[in-house]
Amino acid sequence: MQFAAALPLQSGASLRDYHLSFETYGTLNAARSNAVLVCHALNASHHVAGVYAGQDKSEGWWDNMIGPGKPLDTNKFFVIGVNNLGSCFGSTGPMHTNPDTGRVYGAGFPVVTVEDWVDAQARLLDALGIQTLAAVMGGSLGGMQALSWTLQYPGRVRHALVIASAPNLTAENIAFNEVARRAITTDPEFHGGHFYDHGTVPKRGLRIARMIGHITYLSDDVMNEKFGRDQIAPALVASLAALPPGDVRATSAVPYKFSTLEAEFQIESYLRYQGDKFAEYFDANTYLLITRALDYFDPARRYNGNLSLALARASAKFLLVSFTTDWRFAPKRSREIVKALLDNKRDVSYAEIDAPHGHDAFLLDDPRYISVVRSYFESIEVQA
Amino acid sequence: MQFAAALPLQSGASLRDYHLSFETYGTLNAARSNAVLVCHALNASHHVAGVYAGQDKSEGWWDNMIGPGKPLDTNKFFVIGVNNLGSCFGSTGPMHTNPDTGRVYGAGFPVVTVEDWVDAQARLLDALGIQTLAAVMGGSLGGMQALSWTLQYPGRVRHALVIASAPNLTAENIAFNEVARRAITTDPEFHGGHFYDHGTVPKRGLRIARMIGHITYLSDDVMNEKFGRDQIAPALVASLAALPPGDVRATSAVPYKFSTLEAEFQIESYLRYQGDKFAEYFDANTYLLITRALDYFDPARRYNGNLSLALARASAKFLLVSFTTDWRFAPKRSREIVKALLDNKRDVSYAEIDAPHGHDAFLLDDPRYISVVRSYFESIEVQA
Repeated sequence: MQFAAALPLQSGASLRDYHLSFETYGTLNAARSNAVLVCHALNASHHVAGVYAGQDKSEGWWDNMIGPGKPLDTNKFFVIGVNNLGSCFGSTGPMHTNPDTGRVYGAGFPVVTVEDWVDAQARLLDALGIQTLAAVMGGSLGGMQALSWTLQYPGRVRHALVIASAPNLTAENIAFNEVARRAITTDPEFHGGHFYDHGTVPKRGLRIARMIGHITYLSDDVMNEKFGRDQIAPALVASLAALPPGDVRATSAVPYKFSTLEAEFQIESYLRYQGDKFAEYFDANTYLLITRALDYFDPARRYNGNLSLALARASAKFLLVSFTTDWRFAPKRSREIVKALLDNKRDVSYAEIDAPHGHDAFLLDDPRYISVVRSYFESIEVQA
Repeated sequence: MQFAAALPLQSGASLRDYHLSFETYGTLNAARSNAVLVCHALNASHHVAGVYAGQDKSEGWWDNMIGPGKPLDTNKFFVIGVNNLGSCFGSTGPMHTNPDTGRVYGAGFPVVTVEDWVDAQARLLDALGIQTLAAVMGGSLGGMQALSWTLQYPGRVRHALVIASAPNLTAENIAFNEVARRAITTDPEFHGGHFYDHGTVPKRGLRIARMIGHITYLSDDVMNEKFGRDQIAPALVASLAALPPGDVRATSAVPYKFSTLEAEFQIESYLRYQGDKFAEYFDANTYLLITRALDYFDPARRYNGNLSLALARASAKFLLVSFTTDWRFAPKRSREIVKALLDNKRDVSYAEIDAPHGHDAFLLDDPRYISVVRSYFESIEVQA
């Protein structure tokens, strides 16, 4: 959907003549009371569920959660996925033309914040004739948007599902974002963000950024379980594992390559593969913008760090979910939000799921997690 | 000290006509029974203690631990620091000339392992006329060398102090090393490791590598305490902190820069500074070699992962120390070593220090830590 009117941004800049890509699932009821907005995180889009005709592998990124009969049941709810401004999956972003200059935005694309995205989403709802959301839902950075909805438009959202999220980033979170950004911006092919003009892509930087990201998405435990110290010759490793301890044949039977350049361990080739794949399709300026939006989100900031004061505006009911092995957005960060809501006597449910998968768990099929979300949506009343 | 005879390496390659830089502190006694070898980690050298004449800021990297009257008391012990092969602080490394080719080693410098370093250190002791060490001591990668000493030369080492170390790297540890290496090797100035010939230095890669390293050396807690979400205008931040919560003047008084390229938070400028400093003096090939030595160390490997079998050869007495917030080499990794030694009925002391500083704690002045090391060295008998 195209929007002509300028959207004022937190930075003081504005965006006009912008496009928002979105998808909907299910049917908006007559009372327009069953809409659920699903917000995405770094590497995702408006395509939250379902497959495109003739494209078997085009499953939406939260397809396990959203669809007919699924926890967020599209037989009951009208689900909306929106691609955020600055992203690279359809909505207006740095690879598009700036109507003011007639040139590609590139590094000139304004810095957008979680609050800006929420404002843009609200305009989309206006255009769709939806005044009030039955719920807003998101994981990670998407959870920040869900939380921000309850502060920016408290009268327009009845329920918020904030999953594997945080009230702001820690210094360590920012640090990882910064290293990833520096890898991109110091790549000679970045050209100060105007790489489109040079016909280049800063793939080296994108690969490094993605590799760093992947490490922080997984738990130490799950990485040990999936990869451990396994070397790249898996058949050989398996045959050795069958030998009794101390067997002389095991002594040097999986020889190291003794190379600093070749991948030796499976975790290395996994990360290289993930980095290579990401660099083929993700936009470098988008990476910078989205990580910066993460850094900047901090609703308590204007309350001198007092989150309870900051969340006083929220009137929605909440479900928060965290995962025990998520060290990127640890359970204690969700508990900060829970505490601040309880300080304001808000209606809040909280589930801390004992899952081994780290931050990635919010996209996976842990049965307790799925069941908590299902129950929560079942409890939401929708007047037709 | 120069060594003409070839040193056979684990890889099958060998090094000849190599140099080992070392320093000694204190006096070797007549019985040659008071020598303590101190092994270094990634970014350190043979200069473990003291200052060089006329250079006030040239303190050795473990100067808080080693010196007259210090925990490792050089009035009692004869301390030896050795720079490892492949390093960039004096001993033969990739920036030196290969005697076989007459050209700089560069990427042709053979991959060296913890075991190779220990072998080289043993040759140095031979040359110094020291048959038996009163103790070998190291932190992190240095602790791996101390452990390996007890396995490779069980008859030559009476005590081993293995601090903030591990019996091998986890998948996550290897993953961080791999990202750092990829940042270096994909830097266009790396030239496949032959950057000396091109008159370049892959500084971009080194900066990223160091930034990643720094994140893993610190705990999340200490990073929050030191930097938190503080922005780069510290005076302004301080004046705002004095305002009561919700004061309107706090609302936007520390404006964000809304930039993806400029450093916004103090943690960002700290990391950039550390990266810049490191790239000025550290050698890129050395970084690859030393992280690879970390990856490869795994004494249980030839025993099918059975660490108890692997450590059966050790006859030294042990002190192990770990730090609660060290997530790089977590306490549970030290406990694996302790357990394997106890399985072999070895004499082992273990201290798990409740310190906030993460992996870096092993270089800092935690009083309990210092006191444990002091007591241990006091308990070591030295026959004159």
